[in-house]
Amino acid sequence: MTIRIGILGYGNLGRGIEASIQTCDDLELAAVFTRRDPSSISIKAKGVPVVSVSDIALWADKIDVLILCGGSATDLPAQTPEFAKLFNVVDSFDTHAKIPEHFSNVDAAARSGKKVALISAGWDPGMFSLIRLYANCILPNGKDYTFWGKGVSQGHSDAIRRIPGVKNAKQYTVPVQDAVDAVRSGSNPELSTRQKHLRDCYVVLEQGADPERVEQQIKTMPNYFADYDTTVHFITEDEFAKNHSGLAHGGFVFRTGSTGWNNEHKHVIEFSLKLDSNPEFTASVIVAYARAVARLSAEGQSGCRTVFDVAPAYLSPLSGEQLRAHLL
Amino acid sequence: MTIRIGILGYGNLGRGIEASIQTCDDLELAAVFTRRDPSSISIKAKGVPVVSVSDIALWADKIDVLILCGGSATDLPAQTPEFAKLFNVVDSFDTHAKIPEHFSNVDAAARSGKKVALISAGWDPGMFSLIRLYANCILPNGKDYTFWGKGVSQGHSDAIRRIPGVKNAKQYTVPVQDAVDAVRSGSNPELSTRQKHLRDCYVVLEQGADPERVEQQIKTMPNYFADYDTTVHFITEDEFAKNHSGLAHGGFVFRTGSTGWNNEHKHVIEFSLKLDSNPEFTASVIVAYARAVARLSAEGQSGCRTVFDVAPAYLSPLSGEQLRAHLL
Repeated sequence: MTIRIGILGYGNLGRGIEASIQTCDDLELAAVFTRRDPSSISIKAKGVPVVSVSDIALWADKIDVLILCGGSATDLPAQTPEFAKLFNVVDSFDTHAKIPEHFSNVDAAARSGKKVALISAGWDPGMFSLIRLYANCILPNGKDYTFWGKGVSQGHSDAIRRIPGVKNAKQYTVPVQDAVDAVRSGSNPELSTRQKHLRDCYVVLEQGADPERVEQQIKTMPNYFADYDTTVHFITEDEFAKNHSGLAHGGFVFRTGSTGWNNEHKHVIEFSLKLDSNPEFTASVIVAYARAVARLSAEGQSGCRTVFDVAPAYLSPLSGEQLRAHLL
Repeated sequence: MTIRIGILGYGNLGRGIEASIQTCDDLELAAVFTRRDPSSISIKAKGVPVVSVSDIALWADKIDVLILCGGSATDLPAQTPEFAKLFNVVDSFDTHAKIPEHFSNVDAAARSGKKVALISAGWDPGMFSLIRLYANCILPNGKDYTFWGKGVSQGHSDAIRRIPGVKNAKQYTVPVQDAVDAVRSGSNPELSTRQKHLRDCYVVLEQGADPERVEQQIKTMPNYFADYDTTVHFITEDEFAKNHSGLAHGGFVFRTGSTGWNNEHKHVIEFSLKLDSNPEFTASVIVAYARAVARLSAEGQSGCRTVFDVAPAYLSPLSGEQLRAHLL
């Protein structure tokens, strides 16, 4: 059975989903849905229609899983519950603090539509969450550390761009190497916010803007920068376009802990990602979970799930026998 | 509900299980079963009976999960199917090539007894297998690498001890740093057996044995050493006892691959373990899966499972709500 995938939203993530589907023999892209004028969008996949989201209900029987590629701030809180009534869906909702509320809304919608929804797929939340869960269960007596970067933080870049006089900006979150090394050594350090990450900012100014004032405003901005060691580099628009257009990211999850009758043995669990393209890797995780969602739905399940609720074998196109023979 | 655990076999692994259970509020050790004379065994847990394995059937209603701590060569192929008829069981069967056969035998037994059995829990097979599976599903276009060590290989140590003139021996498997670095860089190297691991041997000779002959016999031993760069150190029995009695181990799993319409973006997924005590960490994984097995059984499931078949949330004592709020 080929699993028919729909994509809603053709930005960086939607394009990553499109590319990822072509590497999977058991999946096919059925349609791309957009809020824009469909004729304004040219996609890479051959022979796949681009459809206005206002016609999406007509596709209820032609799509096995709809992948929602909108943003977590305003798109997904509305879209995922709305479309989970009609389709099996996967999203990458990543506002950690609002996950319980989002889960509850999506669960009610998916149950009412007898569909399966999986929220918060990606790498954090997603793969990092899985490692945190497994590692917590294995080492109950231990401590978690998550480091992000080096990579672009969209939220911090946006915050800089809101400062008057700033034309463009990119903010890199950088894990502090000494902190990573201390954690890796198993010494269980207590680390302040400032000790874990640096913030590295590349800023293009509007003509006539005062660099000292802008730098001061960035470095003292509460929540975003005030608690961090922040470096501000002023660059030209050309330099910005040339050196700061990439979407690389990554990070580290550690759990360090001890076992033994007297906690005499130390252990370090480390997981890391080094990603050339954050949206394409996120898309690849989502696509694997879309396969799982199609299977759970075919079994007659319904309701909201997260990566914690899905047995890993559901992600693979291989049979249980093949997995046991080759990957166990 | 407290989950009542039985341990069969009180060696390094059984003692690790005993220590791990004491860190889990929802688990209790109900009994330790042994093939030896129970009066010859003194365990650490207070008030827990040591029982002859010949009386184990009397405990069918007093134990929720029986953990089998025997070896993969001869114990588990017989024990796991035998006891899966009477108990929910977990084992750490680690002969990769024989997993399909073992699975099939255990599955038939567990179904006949309406019990749940989980085989091959630990870190490899186990955690490393999980990472291989997740990483393969996310990066279908990629390459796997597993490195073991630095740590003791029991099989290789035994092979050295069988050489005439050898009194005692320990063999460390050591990953080659250049190979690990090349994989970590994302360069997708082709690595021969010799390029991936070194073998480091510490040998105590019988009086009068010829070191040159023993070293030659080790280095030319087919399968075990001939394909590796092997170093042999002759040491005294005192030095052996002092420096080579530890059970540390660890290793690395990598998957490197690419995404994008033209595979233009590279990604590196890395997972590593650094373990002071191989048996205690293995025990900690097994205990988490014992919790999962008790729950699957309470749901009315039966048959054989592996780590691939168990949704991660089943491993945790926390509720779905707690997991989503704190670990996702």
